[in-house]
Amino acid sequence: MNDWVPAGLLTDKYELTMLAAALRDGTANRRTTWEVFARRLPAGRRYGVVAGTGRLLELLPQFRFDDDACELLAHFLDSETLGYLRDFRFSGDIDGYPEGELYFPGSPVLSVHGSFAECVLLETLVLSIFNHDTAIASAAARMVSAAEGRPLVEMGSRRTHERAAVAAARAAYVAGFAGSSNLEAQRRYGIPTQGTAAHAFTMLYAHRDSPSAVSELAAFRAQVEALGPDTTLLVDTYDVTTGIANAVAAAGNGLGAVRIDSGELGVLARQAREQLDQLGANQTRIMVSGDLDEFAIAALRAEPVDSYGVGTSLVTGSGAPTANMVYKLVEVDGIPVQKRSSHKESRGGHKEALRLSKPTGTITEEIVHPAGRPPTTTEPHRALTTPLVRGGDVVADNDLTAARKLVASGLLSLPWEGLKLSPGEPAIPTQTIAP
Amino acid sequence: MNDWVPAGLLTDKYELTMLAAALRDGTANRRTTWEVFARRLPAGRRYGVVAGTGRLLELLPQFRFDDDACELLAHFLDSETLGYLRDFRFSGDIDGYPEGELYFPGSPVLSVHGSFAECVLLETLVLSIFNHDTAIASAAARMVSAAEGRPLVEMGSRRTHERAAVAAARAAYVAGFAGSSNLEAQRRYGIPTQGTAAHAFTMLYAHRDSPSAVSELAAFRAQVEALGPDTTLLVDTYDVTTGIANAVAAAGNGLGAVRIDSGELGVLARQAREQLDQLGANQTRIMVSGDLDEFAIAALRAEPVDSYGVGTSLVTGSGAPTANMVYKLVEVDGIPVQKRSSHKESRGGHKEALRLSKPTGTITEEIVHPAGRPPTTTEPHRALTTPLVRGGDVVADNDLTAARKLVASGLLSLPWEGLKLSPGEPAIPTQTIAP
Repeated sequence: MNDWVPAGLLTDKYELTMLAAALRDGTANRRTTWEVFARRLPAGRRYGVVAGTGRLLELLPQFRFDDDACELLAHFLDSETLGYLRDFRFSGDIDGYPEGELYFPGSPVLSVHGSFAECVLLETLVLSIFNHDTAIASAAARMVSAAEGRPLVEMGSRRTHERAAVAAARAAYVAGFAGSSNLEAQRRYGIPTQGTAAHAFTMLYAHRDSPSAVSELAAFRAQVEALGPDTTLLVDTYDVTTGIANAVAAAGNGLGAVRIDSGELGVLARQAREQLDQLGANQTRIMVSGDLDEFAIAALRAEPVDSYGVGTSLVTGSGAPTANMVYKLVEVDGIPVQKRSSHKESRGGHKEALRLSKPTGTITEEIVHPAGRPPTTTEPHRALTTPLVRGGDVVADNDLTAARKLVASGLLSLPWEGLKLSPGEPAIPTQTIAP
Repeated sequence: MNDWVPAGLLTDKYELTMLAAALRDGTANRRTTWEVFARRLPAGRRYGVVAGTGRLLELLPQFRFDDDACELLAHFLDSETLGYLRDFRFSGDIDGYPEGELYFPGSPVLSVHGSFAECVLLETLVLSIFNHDTAIASAAARMVSAAEGRPLVEMGSRRTHERAAVAAARAAYVAGFAGSSNLEAQRRYGIPTQGTAAHAFTMLYAHRDSPSAVSELAAFRAQVEALGPDTTLLVDTYDVTTGIANAVAAAGNGLGAVRIDSGELGVLARQAREQLDQLGANQTRIMVSGDLDEFAIAALRAEPVDSYGVGTSLVTGSGAPTANMVYKLVEVDGIPVQKRSSHKESRGGHKEALRLSKPTGTITEEIVHPAGRPPTTTEPHRALTTPLVRGGDVVADNDLTAARKLVASGLLSLPWEGLKLSPGEPAIPTQTIAP
């Protein structure tokens, strides 16, 4: 795809003009630490799930300024700054929570260390990745939790930007979705893809002279012919009861699944189960889709639903499409710094974090402490901050399976009220130890 | 950026399995028409703004399946389907509303004509582009209208996916924003960029031994030294009054602008104006930013604000991050088709639209009619459907300036209640004439 972009330009202009000003007087070389954190979770959310770490590690080596970028930048930058950018390669260190880790307000999910120059340049890209991917993963985890073990398939590509769709599929997979409809997510990240059929396919077989039940059967036969009886047939184009009868007529009672995409899904799922069983298709699964969010998923718990297809609410973060993360300068030449403008206090100093739990594994508190100085505690605890980049080189594994396991164990570690879907406070408190 | 993607894979898997099934029995060659429309506007919105048309026309020639894509597809597609995809090039026709046109529920904003095979493949990409870009442009237009002529700058890149950010900057520009912070939007689309500075730049100059007012002055001097006195200084890192005094001390009373990013913006803007005037900086502009949406922008109308920086609410569509557009099969071999599942009726037949207005130019009604058969009317009216692609070749100008003009004239054409920010009905009714 001729959709090439100089990665360094996926950035706000002011990062580069600040660089120019700082290079001019030498402050650009000051050693700095920057922290990525969220002051709050989206309204009423009880936990968040860190995602995007792997994408950052993937994009970091590509964050360069080539001739094409420099041609644009020459319009407003001096030659010293351009020279710096031409040779740019991030050479600092990055620590952070591993991808898939839970986070809470104030959790230092990423710390970036290096010269002011190299760290300020990364701000926009780091935040774009974390704010998007974390928003999706955090919403997805609530859906996974609400589904209580039933598989979820991400199918929201059409409801978001075409490239954001790939990242959304990845974030949903991290959070525990079984797969996605997005083919590029499969090519790029190895995420299992699934596909059923659209109403248009059934309608393609419509004839002026024959009733819809007849043309629907023709469409189902064509799909089974091409994809085998284990396919998923979409049965609600015209009438669900007729659709299910046609589906079993076309595929036999070894039909893989039916999908219902509209109507009162709980009632329809019950009727479908009964009808399928009567037709001897008692192994045929029932997939539901159509404007599902975590609440609708939870409401279907008692129904004979085997899997969920989730679109819009997944890719839009179910009401919270961005994660409110910020990238703040917290230390300059070893000295903590913080701004003091109204309502936006940030806390200075390079920090790390650990999480306390009960002997049962249920987490009780997050402790954010000055880097290298964890508090002594006799309670079970786990360090959350891990090395990701050293001297510009990625040192962490970029492993989606590990991230998925971390989300799964994180959800298990929450106190029971942390899993409630209703609005509430963060599941555990965060204590910040002053430097 | 080594971020290459086979564009054909930015697609749901089921488009390709439907293709496989339809190729097998020949239905893939049926002539079809598909319509992109929104059944409703986002809750309470009174109009929407079509955006993404230009991006679709740009991506259409790249929608191919190369070796890399086919390698993946070979895992689940037969050789006939793979052969079709290897040679794929869209060769049909596309009509639609020009980019920047207003739309209402049921407006046929895009019609795609061609074989089932070539049209079904485009579904996901078309919807990704239109649902994203239209959501942003529709929110942006409300902000432009609320700002009553004062310039708005898009600065939300960090709050959305890094590639969605570029499209968001473009959509905001279409809707009337003066510019963006996003450099790739400038490189790719020629959108004017602006930049100020971040709090981090001021904090970089912090010293253990000197008060913040002293280090802030040093930071401002460095910025003015590098960027000239016409720059914008961010004055709320510590204390706004001290910040403004420092800003004028650093740049002189020819300072370009100050930016206030936190606090009670109306009060602060008034105080800032007074202080700047007292300091002789009566040409210095005041820019405000910080969680602004259309309501906050409107609430600042009476204040001495010269421009607005808008981030989060812009890139998230101000509560409506996706535009709910669908891509529906409406005609097969000249016969209108429609599905009948609950609550999701779609209207069959290939359609076009025109818009009626009063002699004053105020629009009164949208008329959706069978293609080629506009109703006769004595009222002033304008055809909305224009040719975009013929035989696979783009025939429309892809002109952002024209799109901006269309939004501006569209906003002027709305009845006054259509511009209200409060929730309400669509500004004009839509009448659909049956085929």
